[in-house]
Amino acid sequence: MTINEKINKLRDLMKERKIDMYVIPMSDFHLSEYVGDHFKTIQYMSGFTGSNATVVVSMSESGLWTDGRYFIQAKHELSGSEVKLFEMGEEGVPTVSEYLKAHLERNCVLGFDGRVISKKQYDEFLEIVEEKSGSIYSSEDLVDIIWADRPALPKKPIYILEEKYAGESTESKINFLRLRVKEKKADAFLLTSLYDIAWLLNLRGDDIPCVPVFMSYVFVTEKDVTLYAFDESVSQSVREYLASNGIEIRDYEKIYDDLKSVSSDIDSILIDDNVVNAALCQALGEVSFISDINPTELMKSVKNDVEITNTKLAHIKDGVAVTKFIYWLKNNIKASEISEVDAANKLEEFRKEQENYIEPSFDTISAYGKNAAMMHYEATEENFSYLKPEGLYLVDSGGHYYEGTTDITRTIVLGPVTDKMKEYFTVTLRSNLRLMEAHFPEGVTGQNLDVLARGPVWDMGLDYRCGTGHGVGHILNVHEGPNNFRWRITDKGRAFPLKSGMITTDEPGLYIEDEFGIRHENELLCVPDKKTEYGNFLKLEPLTFVPFDLDAVDASMFTYLEKESLNRYHKEVYEKISPYLNDDEAEWLKYATREI
Amino acid sequence: MTINEKINKLRDLMKERKIDMYVIPMSDFHLSEYVGDHFKTIQYMSGFTGSNATVVVSMSESGLWTDGRYFIQAKHELSGSEVKLFEMGEEGVPTVSEYLKAHLERNCVLGFDGRVISKKQYDEFLEIVEEKSGSIYSSEDLVDIIWADRPALPKKPIYILEEKYAGESTESKINFLRLRVKEKKADAFLLTSLYDIAWLLNLRGDDIPCVPVFMSYVFVTEKDVTLYAFDESVSQSVREYLASNGIEIRDYEKIYDDLKSVSSDIDSILIDDNVVNAALCQALGEVSFISDINPTELMKSVKNDVEITNTKLAHIKDGVAVTKFIYWLKNNIKASEISEVDAANKLEEFRKEQENYIEPSFDTISAYGKNAAMMHYEATEENFSYLKPEGLYLVDSGGHYYEGTTDITRTIVLGPVTDKMKEYFTVTLRSNLRLMEAHFPEGVTGQNLDVLARGPVWDMGLDYRCGTGHGVGHILNVHEGPNNFRWRITDKGRAFPLKSGMITTDEPGLYIEDEFGIRHENELLCVPDKKTEYGNFLKLEPLTFVPFDLDAVDASMFTYLEKESLNRYHKEVYEKISPYLNDDEAEWLKYATREI
Repeated sequence: MTINEKINKLRDLMKERKIDMYVIPMSDFHLSEYVGDHFKTIQYMSGFTGSNATVVVSMSESGLWTDGRYFIQAKHELSGSEVKLFEMGEEGVPTVSEYLKAHLERNCVLGFDGRVISKKQYDEFLEIVEEKSGSIYSSEDLVDIIWADRPALPKKPIYILEEKYAGESTESKINFLRLRVKEKKADAFLLTSLYDIAWLLNLRGDDIPCVPVFMSYVFVTEKDVTLYAFDESVSQSVREYLASNGIEIRDYEKIYDDLKSVSSDIDSILIDDNVVNAALCQALGEVSFISDINPTELMKSVKNDVEITNTKLAHIKDGVAVTKFIYWLKNNIKASEISEVDAANKLEEFRKEQENYIEPSFDTISAYGKNAAMMHYEATEENFSYLKPEGLYLVDSGGHYYEGTTDITRTIVLGPVTDKMKEYFTVTLRSNLRLMEAHFPEGVTGQNLDVLARGPVWDMGLDYRCGTGHGVGHILNVHEGPNNFRWRITDKGRAFPLKSGMITTDEPGLYIEDEFGIRHENELLCVPDKKTEYGNFLKLEPLTFVPFDLDAVDASMFTYLEKESLNRYHKEVYEKISPYLNDDEAEWLKYATREI
Repeated sequence: MTINEKINKLRDLMKERKIDMYVIPMSDFHLSEYVGDHFKTIQYMSGFTGSNATVVVSMSESGLWTDGRYFIQAKHELSGSEVKLFEMGEEGVPTVSEYLKAHLERNCVLGFDGRVISKKQYDEFLEIVEEKSGSIYSSEDLVDIIWADRPALPKKPIYILEEKYAGESTESKINFLRLRVKEKKADAFLLTSLYDIAWLLNLRGDDIPCVPVFMSYVFVTEKDVTLYAFDESVSQSVREYLASNGIEIRDYEKIYDDLKSVSSDIDSILIDDNVVNAALCQALGEVSFISDINPTELMKSVKNDVEITNTKLAHIKDGVAVTKFIYWLKNNIKASEISEVDAANKLEEFRKEQENYIEPSFDTISAYGKNAAMMHYEATEENFSYLKPEGLYLVDSGGHYYEGTTDITRTIVLGPVTDKMKEYFTVTLRSNLRLMEAHFPEGVTGQNLDVLARGPVWDMGLDYRCGTGHGVGHILNVHEGPNNFRWRITDKGRAFPLKSGMITTDEPGLYIEDEFGIRHENELLCVPDKKTEYGNFLKLEPLTFVPFDLDAVDASMFTYLEKESLNRYHKEVYEKISPYLNDDEAEWLKYATREI
């Protein structure tokens, strides 16, 4: 079927059900950031392969909304179909909500699958529809009817993350969780975030590429914990492990029926309405909701001592792999033909040499020259460039090890660079270092500190169109909250103080279209600094140890404090990484980490 | 009467009215920051003379709550009375609300004067009382019955601030205001902030020391504007001016009756419930409130072109006065006996020499040596120190001129200083300069930038227990919002982006108890910087031009960027100020602004 045929098929189904408009979000039942193949409904219906989009289909029109990262790609992928591109954030382009408000008529029916839309989003849609005395039809996934050869739901085996890696027992985590739920005056807690479930139960899976989680829900009351997961995923040993923790296990699909008949002594349920899907909330019927951030999200963001100790080990291994890769690349760039895909594969080889390596923590961004100006560029077997012995090559990659998860970007000098490259490289390195050197009292948030990184870039009238950094999951999603480095203070007022034990990336960059892209990314661990009469101070300690490429540094731009910071960091890189290198590599590293 | 006698008198009145606890806040009917003598009820009832406190009296106990600035002073002033000091923010000390919750009993009656408590505070008290099935008695000011020789309400003459100074007509301001009220979907707007009223009507008065405002309320509907002010304050010319702007004038006291019979086509009224007193809201009865920041607060914070041009002139005059003062002080410190009061008076003399000077914009802080460690120290005829030719002298002062309002702090070296003084002086000067050099896109708030100033201080495990800066009123309260430099992101989520035309102080400091105090304060004007594909950038431009004392600067601590910033600033100080000095002064200024 062509895209247009699929859209028309959808329209037939809509007509039968008297639906005027149908919304397809890019999401799974858990509002996960990345989704497995089963949930790639937008790709199936429109041909668009990016990671963020919403499709809206009416009888007369179909549109796809996506953000600035994907405008060019979407134009290309939608061409030849009737699907119209709506460039989010551009002047004069309505948001999905504005579009619905403008095009839905009186007594309209708006359709979507209630399982892939958050309660919050549902409530927003409901408000729009009710203003038009209309209604919502959310009980069916119409794409599923059209999509004959749809991949099955993932049901890979679940495995136990031993306590020597998890650092805290499930029992202990559940006890603390119950205290938090009680504080919120809720009788029960519905947890649907796959990352939080995996963390809470010390279990991992393989149901989302690069994110070792498994399809599941958890329902916690004062007495009981119930895990909903696919029977096929749960081995006998996992079953016994859960039983020994007093956790009941029920089939993944049973949650809807169970919620419909939830015990009568449960009056209020804690949910994060940004994450829990609308269908689950409807199943719960008349119960009252207390909407707040999942307590598990806050708990898992503060890494425990075992996680911290292990993460440091993981970063040494990862630093060795990336350092070896840079040495290899610098030594082979002139002699052999290396594509972006080859380079990514080679880096993966170095990681695989390390003990306890599991898999990449996300798809490697291996981008040469102007490709690196696309922040989320992905070289594929069909579409890639060759590296040349000149200019800059950006590689953003990471790994899951049993000890922890890594995320690092280095921008590597492959040969002669222009003055502009040097200037921009140096400015963003100053940005990176300035944030790393922050000292601040408890209570300070990422919004307070973001300017330390962004300042030197703003001074030039430049910017990067993303946060400076994100929280990092522990053998989970490489992106996690609530900690981050961003500057916008949202209306929600959800600003979370940085706490000792949180890990956040520090990744300022500059992306100059059709020219080059630069990003310097380290992970930073928040640790205690001084304790004085003015408070408990915190600071940021690098976890990542790989040299920044001095070949593109203009040292005259650094202040003496920035120079000291870089020299101190490079000294530590050499001390930590050189013991794992061969003599040639170590000699090179000595030079690569020289004082400026 | 002794304090205890007054408290017992209050208890008698409470008993007659069956009131269990009576609360006395430090406030006037407009929730002004500073209050006139009529409203010094706390001073009368407790003897405490600080600027922030709440008194609570029950049958068995009386307490006074104040903040860290006043602990020592309060201990002293309350001694000999039954009034117990509650040190706000100290561990184990309940807040006023916590105290009420703990001590009020079932069916209690809580009393206070509803005219000096905000609607928001009232609602909080009501919640506490209702949990105990109690009630509120807020219709009487019991202190007024006790206080026989109470100063009368201030009723000084109101005068017109000509448009050549105001820069925008009242008519225009009211038109824009009506648009903002409409946007908020309100039928009317009740304005009780004295600063906002003075700004809106281009009128000034003299009812609060150092704050040229007048007792008044304004009620704005789609068609009408009514000013409530004391008849005695309104001259014939002001009356005509108001009439020509279509503004009805009614007596100050009539507002309560008028609000009781507000027109039936007014369903909703916009109020800032942090500022409007509870009694006014009760008078309004069943009307619904839309609570939001006063639109006038946002409007007046963005200075118009005339205000900006004039403010720059005011700062030149003020800079000349302060520079002459520093020269005089440095030349006389060894020869003559100068007290903190003498110094403040001398500075005032230099200001009075300037054209169009009106009055000080706040009580001068003239603090030598360890006195300067008290952030809000006030030297009085009864209590002051003499300046010596050694160490540091801090002077924080400002003036109202017809062209605008100033606020400046300089820390002046009077002779030999210790290494510690030099280090702390230099660190806080780095703080000041770093904030002044900020560049940032539209949308950025003071919370995002505060770390630029506070960073060098935090690096040492030190801090200053106040914001880095506040907005500055234009011939109004020297402190105004919503712009400021602070780091705490409050739950309210009220973070207001900095806008071109806003004026904010930049005043980091260090206050070392029993040793010394340092503060460097300039006012900064937010102005457009570059406009690029990344947005409209803004920057901060100094308005204050007076040298920082290089005699306490350790130049080796500065980065080259900070050095450049200071040298650039000092060059501008010399260029702008020296033309108004005599030869000796100018020669000295040349040296005082030398390159480092």
